[in-house]
Formats: sequence, structure tokens, C-alpha cells
Amino acid sequence: MDWEVQKQRLDTLVASEKRSELRGALRMLNSVDIAQYLSTLDTEQMLKVFRILPTDMSSDVFSYMDDEQREKLISSIGDAEICRLVDDMFIDDAVDFLEELPNELVKRVLENVSPETRTVINRFLSYPENSAGSIMTIEMCLLPCTYTVSEAMKEIRRTGLDKETINTLYVVNEAGKLVGILALRRLITASDETLLSDIMDVSFVSVGTLEDQESVAETVRKYDLLAVPVIDKEGRPVGIITADDILDVMQQEATEDIEMMSALTPSEDAYMKTGILTLVKNRLPWLVIMLICSIFTGFIISHYEGLLTDTAIVGTIGIALTACIPMIMDTGGNCGQQSSTLVIRGLATGEIAPKDALKVLWKEARVAVLVAVVLSVVCFGIQFVIFQRELNVALTISCAMLCAVVLSKVIGGLLPLGAKALKLDPALTASPLITTIADTCSLLILFALATAVLL
Amino acid sequence: MDWEVQKQRLDTLVASEKRSELRGALRMLNSVDIAQYLSTLDTEQMLKVFRILPTDMSSDVFSYMDDEQREKLISSIGDAEICRLVDDMFIDDAVDFLEELPNELVKRVLENVSPETRTVINRFLSYPENSAGSIMTIEMCLLPCTYTVSEAMKEIRRTGLDKETINTLYVVNEAGKLVGILALRRLITASDETLLSDIMDVSFVSVGTLEDQESVAETVRKYDLLAVPVIDKEGRPVGIITADDILDVMQQEATEDIEMMSALTPSEDAYMKTGILTLVKNRLPWLVIMLICSIFTGFIISHYEGLLTDTAIVGTIGIALTACIPMIMDTGGNCGQQSSTLVIRGLATGEIAPKDALKVLWKEARVAVLVAVVLSVVCFGIQFVIFQRELNVALTISCAMLCAVVLSKVIGGLLPLGAKALKLDPALTASPLITTIADTCSLLILFALATAVLL
Repeated sequence: MDWEVQKQRLDTLVASEKRSELRGALRMLNSVDIAQYLSTLDTEQMLKVFRILPTDMSSDVFSYMDDEQREKLISSIGDAEICRLVDDMFIDDAVDFLEELPNELVKRVLENVSPETRTVINRFLSYPENSAGSIMTIEMCLLPCTYTVSEAMKEIRRTGLDKETINTLYVVNEAGKLVGILALRRLITASDETLLSDIMDVSFVSVGTLEDQESVAETVRKYDLLAVPVIDKEGRPVGIITADDILDVMQQEATEDIEMMSALTPSEDAYMKTGILTLVKNRLPWLVIMLICSIFTGFIISHYEGLLTDTAIVGTIGIALTACIPMIMDTGGNCGQQSSTLVIRGLATGEIAPKDALKVLWKEARVAVLVAVVLSVVCFGIQFVIFQRELNVALTISCAMLCAVVLSKVIGGLLPLGAKALKLDPALTASPLITTIADTCSLLILFALATAVLL
Repeated sequence: MDWEVQKQRLDTLVASEKRSELRGALRMLNSVDIAQYLSTLDTEQMLKVFRILPTDMSSDVFSYMDDEQREKLISSIGDAEICRLVDDMFIDDAVDFLEELPNELVKRVLENVSPETRTVINRFLSYPENSAGSIMTIEMCLLPCTYTVSEAMKEIRRTGLDKETINTLYVVNEAGKLVGILALRRLITASDETLLSDIMDVSFVSVGTLEDQESVAETVRKYDLLAVPVIDKEGRPVGIITADDILDVMQQEATEDIEMMSALTPSEDAYMKTGILTLVKNRLPWLVIMLICSIFTGFIISHYEGLLTDTAIVGTIGIALTACIPMIMDTGGNCGQQSSTLVIRGLATGEIAPKDALKVLWKEARVAVLVAVVLSVVCFGIQFVIFQRELNVALTISCAMLCAVVLSKVIGGLLPLGAKALKLDPALTASPLITTIADTCSLLILFALATAVLL
């Protein structure tokens, strides 16, 4: 249904105070949509609608509300309501929520939840940020390998509905170690007396609690999993991470990569919610560093002052060279950026490894020569026909272009691999860095060649 | 276990021809790992190992092999084997496989599969590329809403194991229209006589067959789904898309965005597998276009020839201005790139919409002024202290820097929104385009200001 139509219908119901009709209408909606609707209301109305929600939906809706709204809500409701809300949330959602809350509210929430929930939440808060432990959920279904299918079914009927996902069951041995996994569909199609150990899948994939979320995402993607078990150092299962959580991780990691590739410190929050000062702080350091790096290009040009301004000796060469500085710099930078982007992305998706350096070099070198030949021909045309430079000047500039393109592409291809080998983030070597390096190289080549040929 | 150790163990078993031991060892492995292992063998050995695989694993392993290997395998095995392999694959995997195969092999495969499989495959091949229909799987569990829980369980036991995922069941009415969904865990914890229509969830989310995969991915991510049903125009379910397939879509879309942001035509294949000529073809068009655009900067500089070279009038001003061309161009470009990247990413994740243009403008303008003040102070320092330019020259250059930064950031923030409003891909307005525009603006500002103040 159209979102605007839906919103208007709800608005009318809210305004007319028809509580039971409103509750009925809300029940037909998805929790994500209800949370989105609540964000359009003022605090008082939001609170009113939130309280009309059926009990089994409210903590789910609460999970999908944004931080600001949740903060408002928590400040306006009573302790008993807080306790019920947080106790009913999945642990990973509750932890996410607490991480964003101001300290005094965190204290108030933790004082009001059940002792078990508090213990689990505190354990979660101690996992390093972005580790598998910090994004997992503890709601999983563990079964001893000595159980039969019918015992397992009984156990699931008893506890199943509380689990975030029981599509996959986790089978443990006497020591509590994870020894196999079992799809729920295997279980319900097996005969009652079969032992779990006979039908479980032992070639399962798992991740450690301290593993980085990016590497967890790569594992889930590679093995096409819908959920991956998280195990502690002793091999005991402590939680699971589901594919829907991995989608958020991948989105976040892609955003981080893209931001770093544009010389931005990755931001925690969405653009619209990030304050001006944070935005400035995320952007300035690299800009200043690159501005300082441009001292080099300044020195190079100053060094060739004679070549550029002494009209007595070199006639129109000076202005011809000056006029092509932006062209040769931009082309070198663009070429380098293309190569580094492809290699950075290849490293991020695991397709390229630092040991492939020679292969990348060989590939980039061949591509570079072909690209460089075409570009220098176009460049010659521009200089000779459009700017009507003398033949030797136009030739010198397009030769410089040829060398600059090849060099930029080769450096652009190898730089990310070097960064990776030095355990730096390859994304750092993207556009602004490679552009600065390519600029400097291109200018040096241009002036060196011009001095040798034209003077 | 360590991959190298595993590989060596398998190599030894393959070399010693211990078939039953090898089969046992393979059974302990994940299909993804086996496919990876096969890729290290030559054709003859690969075929030998592939034939040793337990029958229930071979089509799964086959799904995870890469195109080249599958082609080799298909050319070497008999028609009956092909038929069994493809019939046992999930339809979406089979279609993916056929799409990459040379025409004569596709013909041979289609002649050898069962008529039902052939009909379904042909239907899939007719969906537009990257549509929901082309990535969905038809293996889903449909149940009439008039069924009771026990009838449903019986039906699932009868057909369940063939389905890629029966974690969610799809409930249809008499007309075959999707009216609700039901988690398997709800079903097995409900009492036998309950009607499905009483426990099904009616607030489900679905997508259409022709919907673009990027928008499907956004839906799955927004609603935290593990699977989403695909419905035809009449509202009848025709397939599902699971979260693991969405992970691949997201990875692919992020790569495309990143490549377009670096002025690359997105490539179909992985870097290492793309030929030299394709790489050249993906890179050249934009490089040539931007090279031609640099004619503008050349004209600007040529236009101010007098200012730059006539030493009689302006003394050292000419070389001071020339030497700061790279600095002011790079800084303007970097600033513009930062802003456009943030807005492009915001548009891609759905956080920013074209209607937010005014908010973005206001935000970027304030950030730009703060960043510009800091950068122009640093710039003044560099010019006055390091290059020892005269006070009025250093002041002019840092003023030009201030204006160039503000303008670049504002243009960088608005350009992607303009592209989106014109239904172009915002990623096109990233680094190279905004850099070219920022360069031109920066140079114009620098020379205009210098002419006004210094002459």
C-alpha cells in the first residue's frame, strides 16, 4: 500500500481517538513501518500511539525506532514499562539501543531490567566494538547430540518461540562443544527415534567471538549462510549471527570504504544526523595533509621558473607548458585512481591478495600502455590543432602524458597492495593520495622532458 | 582447520588413489571448500575427485565451482550425468550457470534435463537481467489458508526437504494469492487443529518479479528479512529471494557504485578474470572525455598569459601564481569529492532524497566555510613563510583558496542531487567529474582575483 495513504489513514484514526480501530490498523502493519510512522509524530502523540500497540509488538517496534525517538520515549515512560520493553527485546537489539543512550538513561534502564538480562547485557557491552561477539544474538537453540528427534522436537516446542531463529539447531557434546548443526527441516522430516548425531551436519562453519565483523560478513557471504554460530575459545557456542544482521554490516563496511577512499574519516552516524563540527573534523585532517603535500608541486614549478617565464629564451614554450599543467595532472590522477580503485575493491572482496602483486603489475602495465597511447594521441590533437602549439612542443607534451599515464596506473595498482602488506587499510591509498602522487610525478616528467627536448 | 593443511591431506589421498578414504574426507568438508579445492586440480584429477563425491553433494559442489571449471567438467562428462547434476541444482543456481555457458553447451544441457526443469529454466531466462525474477528461487513452500496445522505439517514432511528454505511458509487463498506468511517455528509450536489463517502474519512484505535487485536488497535490509516472497502482477507468489542471495547483490552493487565513482564502466567479472581489452574499454571513455574537458583549464591559463609571463609588469607574481595552480586545483577537487561522496552514499542508502537539496545546501555551506577558513590560513602560511611570497600575493592566493573550497563543497553537495533529479546515476558525479568542475572554478577564481588585486 502507498505509504502516504497509509499515513493519512493512521493520522485520521489518531486524531479521532478511535483506540480500538487504531490498534486494529496497527496490527496489520509491519513493525518497521510503524516505527517509521511514529517518527512523524510529536512526542505526546507518539507516546499515545506507542501505548496502544499490542504488547507483543511494542518491543519489536521499539527496536526499529531511531535513537532520538527511543530516548524521548524512555524519558517519558515509567520504570515498569522500561523493564518490560527491554526484557522483551532481543539481546543484540537491546545492546545496540543502550550503546547509543546517554549515560544517565543507561543507568536507569539497567536498574529496571531483570538480573539475568542485566548480566547478559553487561557481557555484551564488554566485547570489542565491531567484533562478532558484539553483533551476535544469544537466542539460539542448543541440543545435546544424544537426543533423539522426538526429544528434540519436545524441547523446541517448549522453548522455541523465544528464539530469534530456530531454523537451524546447534548440537553440542557433553563438554558443551559445538559438534554439528541441523536444519529444522531435516529434523521434522526425520523419524522420531533417529539420534541427532546421525543426521547432523558436521561440516559446518563457525566464527570466534573476537573475529571482526567484516571477516564474519565475508564468511557468511562465501558460504551462503542464513546464520553462523559464534563459538568461544573452548569451541562452545555462545550465540549466532543471522544474515539480516550481516546485511547491515556489509552496508556499513561499504560506506566506510567509500568514505575512506574519498579521504574522509568514516562517520558513525548518517549524514543528515551528523553535526557540522563532526563533519568538519572528519574532513579537515586529510585536506590539510594533502595541502601540505602540495608544497612539492609548488617547489617543482618554482624550480623551473626560468623555463616558464623567461620569454627571451623560450618564447611561447612557457605558457604552453603552464597551460597544460591542469590537463596532465588531472589525467595522471584519474588514471591512477581507476587502477587503485579496482585493486582496493579486489582486496576488500578477497579476490586479490598481496601475493598477486606481480600479476597486478603485469596486467596494469599492459592496460596502461594501451590507454596511454590513445590518450597521448588525443592530447597531441588538442595541443597541435586546438591550441596550435608548435610541433615539437605538442610532441613533448604528449610524450610526457604517455609516461605520466603509465607511471600513474602502475603506482595506482601497486600502492594498495603495499598498504595491505604493511597492514594499513588499502582504502587510504585511493583517490586523494594516488592523485597527489600522480600529480607530482606527472609534473616532474613534463618539466624534465621539456628541459631536455625544448631548451 | 588450516586450508593449506587440508589441501595437502586431500592431495595425498588423491595421489594414493584411496577412493573410500577420500570420499570420507570430502564428506567432512563444506561444499564451498570442496569447490575451492577442485579449482587447484588439473581437469583430469578434478573429474576423478568430482566423481568420487557422494551423489547428494555433487550438484551442491557444482553450484560453487567457477564458470571455467564447470565448462571443463560439462565438456568431459556424459549426457546422463549432466541431466542428473542440473536437475538436482536449485533453479536459480542452474540458471546462473547456464547464463555463463557457451551457446553450444547450453543447448546440450537443455536437451538433457527433464522437461519440467527445462520449462522453468526457460521462464527464468526470460526475466530481465538484475530483476527480482532473475535472482529468485522457485523452491518455496505454499500452503492453502484453509489447512490446519497438522495438515500443513503432513504436507511439509512430504515435500519439505526439496525446498531451499522452508523456514518460512507462504499461505495462499483459493485464488492462489499470497495472503500471509508463517514462520516454521510458529507452526511447530501451535496446536494441531489451529487454522493457518488464524496464526499467519498478514503484515508481510513482498516484491514484484520485475523489481530491480537493488531495490529488493534495500527492502530486505530495511525489514531485516531472511527471505522475501516474489509475487506476480496478480499477487500470486512465484518464488522467494533469500538473504544470502541479497548479500551477493549488495556486494555487487557496492562494487558498481565504487567503480562508477572512479569513472570506470562497471565490469561484469572479477578484476583478475577480466581481459586486458575489456579493462581498457571500461577505462578509456571517461578518461578521453575528461581529457577533452581539460581544454577549458588550458584556455583559462592561456587567457591570462600576460599575467603569468610578462615579467616587466608583474615581477614575481607570474611564477607565484603558476606554482600554486596544482595546490589550489587539488584542494578544490578533494573538497568537492568529499562532499559529493557523502551525498552519493546517502542517496544510495536511501538516507538522502532529492527533496533534501536545501538542507544539504545549508549543511555543506556551513561545513565549507569552516573548512575553508582553516585551509586558507594554512595556505597563507605556506605561501608567506615557506615560499616567501609578498604579503599581498600570499593574501590573494589564500583568498582564492577560501572561495574555491566553499564553491567546490557546495557544488559537490548539490551535483549528485541534480543527477538524481534528472534520473541519472548520482555515482557519475563523483570524483573525476566534480574534480574537473572544481579545477575550472578554482582557476577562474584565482586568476580573476589576481587580476583585480595585483595588477
